[in-house]
Amino acid sequence: MLSGGVGGALLARGLAAITDVDLTVIVNVGDDERIYGLLVSPDIDTVIYTMSGREGPHGWGLRDDPFTVMASMDALPIDTNFRIGDRDIATNLFRTDRLAGGWSLTWVTTALASAFGVPATVLPATDDHLKSQLKVANGDWISFQEYFVVRHHSDEVEDIRFDGAAFSKPAPGVIEAIEASDALIIGPSNPVLSIWPILAVPAIGEAVAQKSRVMAVSPLIGGSALKGPAHRILSALGYGTGTSAVIGSYGGLLTDLVIDSSDVDDANGVKRPRIHVADTRMPDLASSTRLAQVIVDAVGKGD
Amino acid sequence: MLSGGVGGALLARGLAAITDVDLTVIVNVGDDERIYGLLVSPDIDTVIYTMSGREGPHGWGLRDDPFTVMASMDALPIDTNFRIGDRDIATNLFRTDRLAGGWSLTWVTTALASAFGVPATVLPATDDHLKSQLKVANGDWISFQEYFVVRHHSDEVEDIRFDGAAFSKPAPGVIEAIEASDALIIGPSNPVLSIWPILAVPAIGEAVAQKSRVMAVSPLIGGSALKGPAHRILSALGYGTGTSAVIGSYGGLLTDLVIDSSDVDDANGVKRPRIHVADTRMPDLASSTRLAQVIVDAVGKGD
Repeated sequence: MLSGGVGGALLARGLAAITDVDLTVIVNVGDDERIYGLLVSPDIDTVIYTMSGREGPHGWGLRDDPFTVMASMDALPIDTNFRIGDRDIATNLFRTDRLAGGWSLTWVTTALASAFGVPATVLPATDDHLKSQLKVANGDWISFQEYFVVRHHSDEVEDIRFDGAAFSKPAPGVIEAIEASDALIIGPSNPVLSIWPILAVPAIGEAVAQKSRVMAVSPLIGGSALKGPAHRILSALGYGTGTSAVIGSYGGLLTDLVIDSSDVDDANGVKRPRIHVADTRMPDLASSTRLAQVIVDAVGKGD
Repeated sequence: MLSGGVGGALLARGLAAITDVDLTVIVNVGDDERIYGLLVSPDIDTVIYTMSGREGPHGWGLRDDPFTVMASMDALPIDTNFRIGDRDIATNLFRTDRLAGGWSLTWVTTALASAFGVPATVLPATDDHLKSQLKVANGDWISFQEYFVVRHHSDEVEDIRFDGAAFSKPAPGVIEAIEASDALIIGPSNPVLSIWPILAVPAIGEAVAQKSRVMAVSPLIGGSALKGPAHRILSALGYGTGTSAVIGSYGGLLTDLVIDSSDVDDANGVKRPRIHVADTRMPDLASSTRLAQVIVDAVGKGD
């Protein structure tokens, strides 16, 4: 499975809850950034925290995490827009320290997933530098965190690029997991911001294109993302709206697409990818598992 | 005043409490290190925390500071010997972020001292790289933090060097403060580990040598440091023991030395520096202020 943040993490948690699923989650690192000197990996942490059932209420951080550190920083002359809870800071200090010591992001991610008891393999897309940069209306190129956290994704996105991607190699285990899998699942993540940077690792894009089964879950319900700006970005980049925008953004890569049951009319006449219909909202583990079961059944039956 | 950690910080607090004293504290940075990716400045923070009356009980960190972050890190595969409280982490994140953004350590230190309401000017000795390295019995050169925190200063120290010192410039304001002062006070800090690295900044060493009044407070009482390995290091480096070791370690720089009232016999026959006797233990602010007043009176009277 390829995953960005919240949506992909919720589906990953559902897939991992199905007994006979052997799951590897390959996670976007294009949003990774140095914040307060800490190397933050927002999507990796959201996947790990969510899959361990400890995610915070707003799609980031840990549940019931105090903010003592941030409260102290608020008294200092520094922009504290990017909020990190105390236990979440521990995760980031660990990653920062280990990476500075020469360990790879893959090693750090594996260690964190193990410490949090995640019942799946979690891998970064790459250990190499790969950073998403967004061109906004005034012509500036800004980082994902600047766009998303500081500016609250209010800018119109005109273009996106993935610095370093052309020279990046997949993290150890990524290609093996893709090749060995019965199906490549793409989570209900923002195609442009969360999945494109994974596919931008050349060897990953090639390996995914070789798969006979590439099944995405649409991140849109009724034309909009439940969280975040996916629909606005797809439209701004010329992919239009709704289900066809999601399909178009994957450029022929998908063999299957799961859409929400409320969007059946939006897929009328679509021949390829094959359309599957399910309830794609995941307010709790039971609904995540139900959606995951639909996917597993479709893969198992070959339809 | 030149200061290392606890002893110097306590005296600085006493000096600042005397109404007509205009105090600048120039602080050792040789112990600064990157820990968990954070740029820690142990002596600067001890001075700021102590002078604001918020110091922790063991000579480092902040009083009543929770350790939520460290407790979470303890669950991860990382050496967490170096303990930092949550609010103390905020200080270090602030410094790390600002330095990464191009601000100087002087700017960061001034901002922290202001935020903590420190009633004096606090300056790092230098904004440049200057790192104390200790040669221990097996021939290894290790950093101060490795020696002090990780190995609990149990190694025999055979030599010390200050990497970068030869090329370092004093922080802005340091030379001006030294030149404008009525007297240069050296706190009851470890001469070798805390004061030598300040004097190792060439222009600071020269400016101090020009002063007609350089008054140190001995860090030894009854031949031992109240805290830390000053007496063992002085002995290991060939300076002998007691008051004469302290005097010798400053190589003729001192015009005055304040010793504890219990050590009067230890200074018999000493002609230079002039010996002053006082109670040099500082268990509370009142005793810090009393010791500070002895110094101020001696400087004022010119004796």
